Amino acid sequence: MRKFNIKGKEPYEVFVGEKIIFEIGELIKQRLNFCCKVVLVCDELVFKIYGDIVKKSLEEAGFLVLIFSLKGEEKSKNFENLTRVYSFLFKNNVKRKDLILALGGGMVGDFAGFCAATYLRGIKFVNIPTTLLAQVDSSIGGKTAVNLKFGKNLVGVIKSPFLVVCDVFFLKTLSFRMFNAGVSEIIKMAAIFSKELFKILVKEKISNVLEDVIAKSIEIKKDVVEKDEFEKNVRMKLNFGHTVGHALEKALNFEIHHGEAVAVGMCFITKQSSKLGITNFKSYLKLKALLEKYSLPVETDVNFNLIFENIMADKKIFGDEINFCVMKKIGEGEIMSLPILKFKDFLKG
Amino acid sequence: MRKFNIKGKEPYEVFVGEKIIFEIGELIKQRLNFCCKVVLVCDELVFKIYGDIVKKSLEEAGFLVLIFSLKGEEKSKNFENLTRVYSFLFKNNVKRKDLILALGGGMVGDFAGFCAATYLRGIKFVNIPTTLLAQVDSSIGGKTAVNLKFGKNLVGVIKSPFLVVCDVFFLKTLSFRMFNAGVSEIIKMAAIFSKELFKILVKEKISNVLEDVIAKSIEIKKDVVEKDEFEKNVRMKLNFGHTVGHALEKALNFEIHHGEAVAVGMCFITKQSSKLGITNFKSYLKLKALLEKYSLPVETDVNFNLIFENIMADKKIFGDEINFCVMKKIGEGEIMSLPILKFKDFLKG
Repeated sequence: MRKFNIKGKEPYEVFVGEKIIFEIGELIKQRLNFCCKVVLVCDELVFKIYGDIVKKSLEEAGFLVLIFSLKGEEKSKNFENLTRVYSFLFKNNVKRKDLILALGGGMVGDFAGFCAATYLRGIKFVNIPTTLLAQVDSSIGGKTAVNLKFGKNLVGVIKSPFLVVCDVFFLKTLSFRMFNAGVSEIIKMAAIFSKELFKILVKEKISNVLEDVIAKSIEIKKDVVEKDEFEKNVRMKLNFGHTVGHALEKALNFEIHHGEAVAVGMCFITKQSSKLGITNFKSYLKLKALLEKYSLPVETDVNFNLIFENIMADKKIFGDEINFCVMKKIGEGEIMSLPILKFKDFLKG
Repeated sequence: MRKFNIKGKEPYEVFVGEKIIFEIGELIKQRLNFCCKVVLVCDELVFKIYGDIVKKSLEEAGFLVLIFSLKGEEKSKNFENLTRVYSFLFKNNVKRKDLILALGGGMVGDFAGFCAATYLRGIKFVNIPTTLLAQVDSSIGGKTAVNLKFGKNLVGVIKSPFLVVCDVFFLKTLSFRMFNAGVSEIIKMAAIFSKELFKILVKEKISNVLEDVIAKSIEIKKDVVEKDEFEKNVRMKLNFGHTVGHALEKALNFEIHHGEAVAVGMCFITKQSSKLGITNFKSYLKLKALLEKYSLPVETDVNFNLIFENIMADKKIFGDEINFCVMKKIGEGEIMSLPILKFKDFLKG
């Protein structure tokens, strides 16, 4: 088991290892020094497989466990479910000393994290991401979110969790497609921050080095969020592939995995930046080949105008300018800022 | 014009003075170094009187002003209005660089502050409290809130504003009752933190020393929130009178002013603590007399069991214990912690 201490306004620990969830009760208890109510906010399918393990471990440590399950799909992150959770918390007499534990993918973590950050002006939050994507990306950095009908993640706060546990044990039951969607974010991290990690992903069979790769990704993300907790500069680089990716997800009504949309987005933007000589063409081909190695999509037939319209609703737009990340070469990302219309030209290239 | 710098994770400035709002546009612009959209979230009645002054000042400085007005009553702080504001922000293409400005009493500040803290994971927030109560209390310390149907302020975050402007100019149009409801929170501050302020309130006609008294109250609150931004210890003293006060407000369906309910709460708890010798009986009488000087209620005929039932829903209850503040003597508060049933006995005393 490896441990990362994430520094920031409210520091927290991230554990990476195998079968940590069997000890989750003790792990939390050691840090709290008391027992309380634990509200397990979980993906209903994940709960069927892993719920009993987590519940048993918590109960054996002396916690009172309450279950709130929901469908593990993006559209569950809505205001109706939010008010349902608040009612659940109130009716179960949950107080400031109690905690919410998320068990599920990024969607569950985002949503449960927002509930915890806002109920009674903040109660403790433990995140147990069960997908590769959530383990390497969304669980680190304290972003929480709910969706509005107009778009994804439009409401949220940045609030540190109390503890994050990334257990590779969960990953065995992920579908091939879901697993690769997670690899997409690891490739993103490598493409903009680590040539070394990129090489490992190219050379090795990921299942042979999985824990190492997850730990490396978390280390990269840790560095980034410690430098820029509130997304004012370097953290924006993590949006590589996301400007187009988010717009594509929306255009497809979220019927594409986030990681897949990001794969398309990375390829899209890098193809264009290579045309302008910002990126070496060989680097573009290497990125494309790596995405293809993990059976990730590298292009889309969705209408460009629809994608562009969705980009316009992006929260990263600053005045008439849009900030986005390009990969200059493997392992090196850079933030670019362009006026909206020039950005449109850039994308159409 | 006086200025206070509030330290904390995100420091901010508070201005106290007269007719500052005529210069609000320049004041904000100097701090931003650019112009943006300003969404004025305001009490509709306040807007009728002061809206044009604020709007004009902002527009003259170059800001684009958008108006979102709502009824200035506690029940406006609900989820329906919250989603209405989010829609308004989205439809008006409000981005992270833009800001929300609250113009109204504490309810407007709490609500608009929560919108600002959560929309796009946080946009800037300027608070212009227009009631005495909001100026001396709720505008300092970053508390934001919306209500659930189960109770007041059950959802919120603690998030620093960008700027707070307390303009005594607004106070001239406050009703006698509303003004005194604000004095109640000043008396609270004096009772638990400042013998000196208490003496001033006893001796002087408040209208003669208003700016001084507001500044002194803000100074006290500043000290408290700087020592304990996240309400872990000394900040809890500010809840003096609030345990019973909140319960009373709820029992009366918020048809009593918050400050009046707090006045009853302070008297109630101090009467009981004086019976046990925790508080000197003379100090209790002095507190009661000062509240009466400002025509504030000092007792209630609401059924005790109903009040106690509402106290049980309080977010400050920690396990089987309840924390509350007593006034040991004038200018000195202390946190007490009692098991629920002992607290009930204490209240019934």
